[in-house]
Amino acid sequence: MPKTLARYFPILTWGSAYSRDTAASDLVAAVIVTIMLIPQSLAYALLAGLPAEMGLYASILPLFAYAIFGSSRTLAVGPVAVVSLMTAAAIGSLGLTDPAQIALAAVTLAFISGVILLGMGLLRLGFLANFLSHPVIAGFITASGLLIAASQLRHILGIPAHGHTLIELGQSLIAHLPETNLATLIIGGGALAFLFWVRKGLKPALLSMGLKPRMADVLTKAGPVAAVVMTTLAVWLFGLEARGVAIVGAVPSGLPPLSAPSFSPALWNQLFLSALLISVIGFVESVSVAQTLAAKKRQRIAPDQELIGLGASNVAAAVSGGYPVTGGFARSVVNFDAGAETPAAGAYTAIGILLAAVLLTPLLYFLPKATLAATIIVAVLSLVDLSILKKAWRYSFVDFAAVFATIGLTLGMGVEVGVSAGVILSIALHLYKTSRPHIAEEGLVPGTQHFRNILRHKVETLPHAVTLRIDESLYFANARFLEDHILERVTNDKTIEHLVLHFAAVNEVDMSALETLEELNHRLRDMGITMHLSEVKGPVMDRLNRTHFLADMTGQIFLSQYEAWEWLRRRGKDTPTGVAAQ
Amino acid sequence: MPKTLARYFPILTWGSAYSRDTAASDLVAAVIVTIMLIPQSLAYALLAGLPAEMGLYASILPLFAYAIFGSSRTLAVGPVAVVSLMTAAAIGSLGLTDPAQIALAAVTLAFISGVILLGMGLLRLGFLANFLSHPVIAGFITASGLLIAASQLRHILGIPAHGHTLIELGQSLIAHLPETNLATLIIGGGALAFLFWVRKGLKPALLSMGLKPRMADVLTKAGPVAAVVMTTLAVWLFGLEARGVAIVGAVPSGLPPLSAPSFSPALWNQLFLSALLISVIGFVESVSVAQTLAAKKRQRIAPDQELIGLGASNVAAAVSGGYPVTGGFARSVVNFDAGAETPAAGAYTAIGILLAAVLLTPLLYFLPKATLAATIIVAVLSLVDLSILKKAWRYSFVDFAAVFATIGLTLGMGVEVGVSAGVILSIALHLYKTSRPHIAEEGLVPGTQHFRNILRHKVETLPHAVTLRIDESLYFANARFLEDHILERVTNDKTIEHLVLHFAAVNEVDMSALETLEELNHRLRDMGITMHLSEVKGPVMDRLNRTHFLADMTGQIFLSQYEAWEWLRRRGKDTPTGVAAQ
Repeated sequence: MPKTLARYFPILTWGSAYSRDTAASDLVAAVIVTIMLIPQSLAYALLAGLPAEMGLYASILPLFAYAIFGSSRTLAVGPVAVVSLMTAAAIGSLGLTDPAQIALAAVTLAFISGVILLGMGLLRLGFLANFLSHPVIAGFITASGLLIAASQLRHILGIPAHGHTLIELGQSLIAHLPETNLATLIIGGGALAFLFWVRKGLKPALLSMGLKPRMADVLTKAGPVAAVVMTTLAVWLFGLEARGVAIVGAVPSGLPPLSAPSFSPALWNQLFLSALLISVIGFVESVSVAQTLAAKKRQRIAPDQELIGLGASNVAAAVSGGYPVTGGFARSVVNFDAGAETPAAGAYTAIGILLAAVLLTPLLYFLPKATLAATIIVAVLSLVDLSILKKAWRYSFVDFAAVFATIGLTLGMGVEVGVSAGVILSIALHLYKTSRPHIAEEGLVPGTQHFRNILRHKVETLPHAVTLRIDESLYFANARFLEDHILERVTNDKTIEHLVLHFAAVNEVDMSALETLEELNHRLRDMGITMHLSEVKGPVMDRLNRTHFLADMTGQIFLSQYEAWEWLRRRGKDTPTGVAAQ
Repeated sequence: MPKTLARYFPILTWGSAYSRDTAASDLVAAVIVTIMLIPQSLAYALLAGLPAEMGLYASILPLFAYAIFGSSRTLAVGPVAVVSLMTAAAIGSLGLTDPAQIALAAVTLAFISGVILLGMGLLRLGFLANFLSHPVIAGFITASGLLIAASQLRHILGIPAHGHTLIELGQSLIAHLPETNLATLIIGGGALAFLFWVRKGLKPALLSMGLKPRMADVLTKAGPVAAVVMTTLAVWLFGLEARGVAIVGAVPSGLPPLSAPSFSPALWNQLFLSALLISVIGFVESVSVAQTLAAKKRQRIAPDQELIGLGASNVAAAVSGGYPVTGGFARSVVNFDAGAETPAAGAYTAIGILLAAVLLTPLLYFLPKATLAATIIVAVLSLVDLSILKKAWRYSFVDFAAVFATIGLTLGMGVEVGVSAGVILSIALHLYKTSRPHIAEEGLVPGTQHFRNILRHKVETLPHAVTLRIDESLYFANARFLEDHILERVTNDKTIEHLVLHFAAVNEVDMSALETLEELNHRLRDMGITMHLSEVKGPVMDRLNRTHFLADMTGQIFLSQYEAWEWLRRRGKDTPTGVAAQ
């Protein structure tokens, strides 16, 4: 029981050894992450089409929940860009206009997502996330980054443009371009330029001024806060609100509200698929960050426990006025680099955000939305990596097709179609590949006991026997291909008396393949050809032993291909046909 | 060009060598198949819920089309039981009552199916049929046989019972049981008993009377014709129609009518999925019969040309008042056994059926539907083979699950849900299996150069090195599993300095797996562990050579696992840690 408890509550493991030193490290990391997270939370809520305060709420209780249930020591959870975009798409498709209804849909989405993640965790279904291939994830993240950046341009320009695909967004932006608000463009463009400079030029400048690298890093991370402060002051001082600069406005001050998700079956039905995609994408993103950071300290994370940690975080978001959250890449790296040692750093960050929600919200009144849009654009452009296309192209056509389709469909048809199509396509392409296995005809490398492809190497062959090495497990999708290939090979060559199937790379033979082998045995027998197997693996042999196949097989099973060769060579010399053919 | 012509028109190949002897053999076979096919055609049309003459029409022009385009020498096409059941389900779901509309839907279904098959043939998509695994097909055929038999009981009992699932049929049969018509039951039960006796007892009786086996076979095949003649006479002589025995009634006499499918987009939309399932199931059934028969004469069939042959047959059915057809198992075996040598036998059979349609239809007026139902029941019960469940159970749980689900869902939710769920489930289970590959930790068998699983064999290991053999191609679905497994193994064992991945059974490394290997290399490096590969296959090596992975890898690539072992053993002696650990 204590062991089970420790599995589901990782806090019991690290909490019992918590020391003052660890607390100090965690506190320092928490301060830095808090500074980074305040503008991000507000910005991502804006991206999700939600009021700014929901971003703050999503950064408080979920962090406590993750600190209790999460298995990563340094993962920082909260609202992230891609999940915010997916939230916007999911809620946008409902066609709601009442802000209360939109907020209810957001907490419901977080709740369903939390339930899905908890369910997957308890049922140990974390492996399902593996069906998102790396090319699909990379393509999806890149395309999402482009979509997010495009969607934020309207805030920089101060125009009402909307859309869930690049085409819709582009058309809408062009149509509204003449309405561009100059004051907004100056604020937004200025913030964008400043943030790009902070990202590229500030750290070298600080270092050359003699600052310590650690300090330079912290100041660089505070760039967005500086932009927020400067542009807010500018709007207030120059009365830019009257000139059409959109501002965040009144943000309710105080503790996160208690909220309850809707349990309307119609709403659940509409949101379920979106919540599933958000859960899986969020989990994949989070786990890869967590694994990368854990490996650096020779630690391990438990993927199924991560599902529980993230599920608890999303349920926490749902009951405290938030929206779907997951582990973020940038903030987790910052947390790690700043020295966080336990999930307590996340709890301290939550306290920081809580203080902000209680104390700082009045100061956000004049914060221009253009500044938040600029922080988003700068953050997401680092996600865009079109070099994946070139890399995949060089590596294999199948991987390229998966990346290309995912990027194209995400940009052209939205996030949900894009990622679903990517998953289906990569599974389909994988099945297609394995349905046409590589089959090599082998000969003996002279003077050795090694066998190689007769098309690639100078090898010896026997005139009355053919050896085929099958480079794939045999299952229903390739069983008929194997049969066709073998029959094609032997039908036109009347000298063949023996066929050896070299099974060294056959890791599995399913029932369809077994039946195909049985049929093949009969068909070859009808043609006067004896079928042998060589180098059958233990687990495959165990399974074949449960059937009549081995008893019915016309030929033998050889432990090694060389043994098969020696046996066939002796047979060839004994039988007149073999000698005549030579 | 002539070569291409010959590929798409197999008739040009066998037609040019057609002799009088071949014609004689084909004619004999055609007579026997015609006798068998007349009652079958009528019966299957009844099963499909169509007028009896549509069964005859489906057995004329489609046979000519197959003779021209088909690649099998002995396949006999026409209406078959399972496809007729699927036709009934497809048309039943439209909720039509007007007979003209039902007939139009049937020819449209044949046309769409023909177009799908032709399209798959021209695009060489025959391999798609391989995704129907043997357990799914076997389960589907067995469940269909049970459904068909249950659906025909109403004709034997003379009651109006309907339904597309076993539950619906059973409830309906029980509800109507009190209405059983005694005269119908006597005719139907008598025909059933007679046909079972013909199948089981007639041939031995004839043989013991001194008949030659060939003649005994022919007489046995004529059993259904005898049942038709006897029961038709009985109805006519005793006026059983007045006693409530349902009869076929007026069947139009003459050549098949010219018909045109509907091109209504709404109807195509409703029928498309059904047509696709009918095409694929029909193709799979047909190809397996054709392959079995071709192999007996060391002939080959061309699966993609079979698609064209069956597609042309279905289009032919659509323009001549028929409904979906495919190659039938029983009649093809009869055709083969009766000595058919070329597809011309099919054309002669078509002429026989044509004569029947022109001359015999008036004689069918008093044919009782119960007799046709009896011929169907006897025919389909040979399809039912529940031993597949036991066989699959013994072989593997995954195959058992696929059979069980297919049978259960086909019986419980109908043919379309059953077969679709079977396909999806077998793909899902296959992906699940390959997502958790077998990974064996290896050691050296003392005194040899062979390596075996340390859990199964007494082997030598090195204290500072671990060798893991991966028994699966590496792709996105199992990349993370591999990473987890390896990190799990090395994280808790601080003595490990070297990890060798034995790649002999790795037939592919996709881009996701490549990135996982890259990450693994970095993570292991961070832990102070060197990663090596051994026995990497040519095609995998070719692909890895296009990347930076091999250059970045901390360790080496060994041609053989023994070479890796020798190198590691020397290293172990050189480095103090290795010695200390020993």
